[in-house]
Amino acid sequence: MTWLYIFDLIGCGVFAISGAILAHEKKMDGIGVLVLAGVTAVGGGTIRDVVLDAPVFWIHNPSYLYAIVLASVFSVFWLNRMKSIPAKALEAADALGLALFVVMGTQKALSHDVAISVAVLMGMITGCFGGMIRDVLANRVPLILQKEMYAFCCLVGASVYVLLNPFHHLLAAALAFTTVLLLRLAAIKWRWQIHVFKYDD
Amino acid sequence: MTWLYIFDLIGCGVFAISGAILAHEKKMDGIGVLVLAGVTAVGGGTIRDVVLDAPVFWIHNPSYLYAIVLASVFSVFWLNRMKSIPAKALEAADALGLALFVVMGTQKALSHDVAISVAVLMGMITGCFGGMIRDVLANRVPLILQKEMYAFCCLVGASVYVLLNPFHHLLAAALAFTTVLLLRLAAIKWRWQIHVFKYDD
Amino acid sequence: MTWLYIFDLIGCGVFAISGAILAHEKKMDGIGVLVLAGVTAVGGGTIRDVVLDAPVFWIHNPSYLYAIVLASVFSVFWLNRMKSIPAKALEAADALGLALFVVMGTQKALSHDVAISVAVLMGMITGCFGGMIRDVLANRVPLILQKEMYAFCCLVGASVYVLLNPFHHLLAAALAFTTVLLLRLAAIKWRWQIHVFKYDD
Repeated sequence: MTWLYIFDLIGCGVFAISGAILAHEKKMDGIGVLVLAGVTAVGGGTIRDVVLDAPVFWIHNPSYLYAIVLASVFSVFWLNRMKSIPAKALEAADALGLALFVVMGTQKALSHDVAISVAVLMGMITGCFGGMIRDVLANRVPLILQKEMYAFCCLVGASVYVLLNPFHHLLAAALAFTTVLLLRLAAIKWRWQIHVFKYDD
Repeated sequence: MTWLYIFDLIGCGVFAISGAILAHEKKMDGIGVLVLAGVTAVGGGTIRDVVLDAPVFWIHNPSYLYAIVLASVFSVFWLNRMKSIPAKALEAADALGLALFVVMGTQKALSHDVAISVAVLMGMITGCFGGMIRDVLANRVPLILQKEMYAFCCLVGASVYVLLNPFHHLLAAALAFTTVLLLRLAAIKWRWQIHVFKYDD
Repeated sequence: MTWLYIFDLIGCGVFAISGAILAHEKKMDGIGVLVLAGVTAVGGGTIRDVVLDAPVFWIHNPSYLYAIVLASVFSVFWLNRMKSIPAKALEAADALGLALFVVMGTQKALSHDVAISVAVLMGMITGCFGGMIRDVLANRVPLILQKEMYAFCCLVGASVYVLLNPFHHLLAAALAFTTVLLLRLAAIKWRWQIHVFKYDD
């Protein structure tokens, strides 16, 4: 599906930009930008494919690397001129990329005949683990371990997908995509958080 | 072997609890608990399987994920009520899990026809690398790199296994298990440490 | 090719020493030395092989593990007696190891029929990602993300290799090797850096 593939590349590009921005914040330079952009964009999908023992998706299709390099170059020029990238635009694009990654990750896992709980986990890994590695490389506690609505949106969206998929493939994908997107945007807008621990302070 | 499988799930659960406790300490929340619990429990075995190019053990058996979720939920409830989990009980359970993981990891590696030195390493990776990733995600220097008796117990136990295995499978497993367990408990009780560097201070 | 294999083991040993030195700096002990030495030496190649879905190179040839153990033991004795390892000698040896790793990584990737951009990336991963994991385990921002000439040398050398390889295999390898080596030594000697961001301060 061509439009899906284009969306996928856009998702990669947006994730790559978030990596490049962190590299800029941490005062890294050229290679730091490329590496953080790269792991954010393809880290989650790579772990998914390796664990599923599927061919890693970017090995036989270098378009993903080109998207990362392009997004990195764009980020460097933009950050040098404007000093920052508008947070709202980035968050919206990131939510879009996340929604796509979760649906495609869950789909790919199901096509490898895994249990639905494993498929849901794979959807979350595809969406979140790239950003987690990005944060580890920048030597900070991963955001997704603290602001849990990010990964929570993935889990809900992936669950929607696996539940509806036996009835209608396309509808399942569309609804799961919408769920992640809206839930994520709502979580950003109204600052939703879920607290499981009662801390004294 | 059913009892081995049950022990394995218990090992996963105990390792998961140690991940959940660190998430609590670091003031993470829901997803942080699940992710730290998950990587601690299955991280080592996942790396072992990926490196051996064996199917990742939890991909076609979601029981491990259920054990992690169960242990996480238990930890959250317990920590909210009691504020801490008794260190001694946890250490004993952790030593039990460690002993099991080391034996099973070494065993699995040997069944892939690797050299015995590689099998010993795989036993250590199975037992220790989950906790190492847990510590990296929580942004601290991994404990096993500092308190070396942890990984050292794994190396000794795995060596016992590979040396006795040609003579008697079950005896080798039983003795290796006992070695890791007793060595680890002794190291905790008498605060054994091995120093290879002479630091001036 | 025997001399290539011997060089490869030397490369492993040198990388292992750099891991052991960091373990010493961070006041780690026995296992910390072995683990940091090990991930620095074989981390990059392991990621390359896992992503290419090739058998991990050290699984069926434990010589690499022996080289790591030997280098670790040597480092411990040396550091205990001399307190430091001469920086210049180590840098030269490291540049040699890097040049070898890049050529072999790119070569291996090409033999798996990947696009040349992917092969260049694999050359860089083989040379740099071991040191990156070492730094993450020692809880510091990876050096290669900051001093970019390190990874940049790999990218240039790997590019030389993929461009010349269709014409003459051995010449391509020799020139790529020389490129990485000289570029890296020049970057150290004249403190070359590439800045892509204009920071205000």
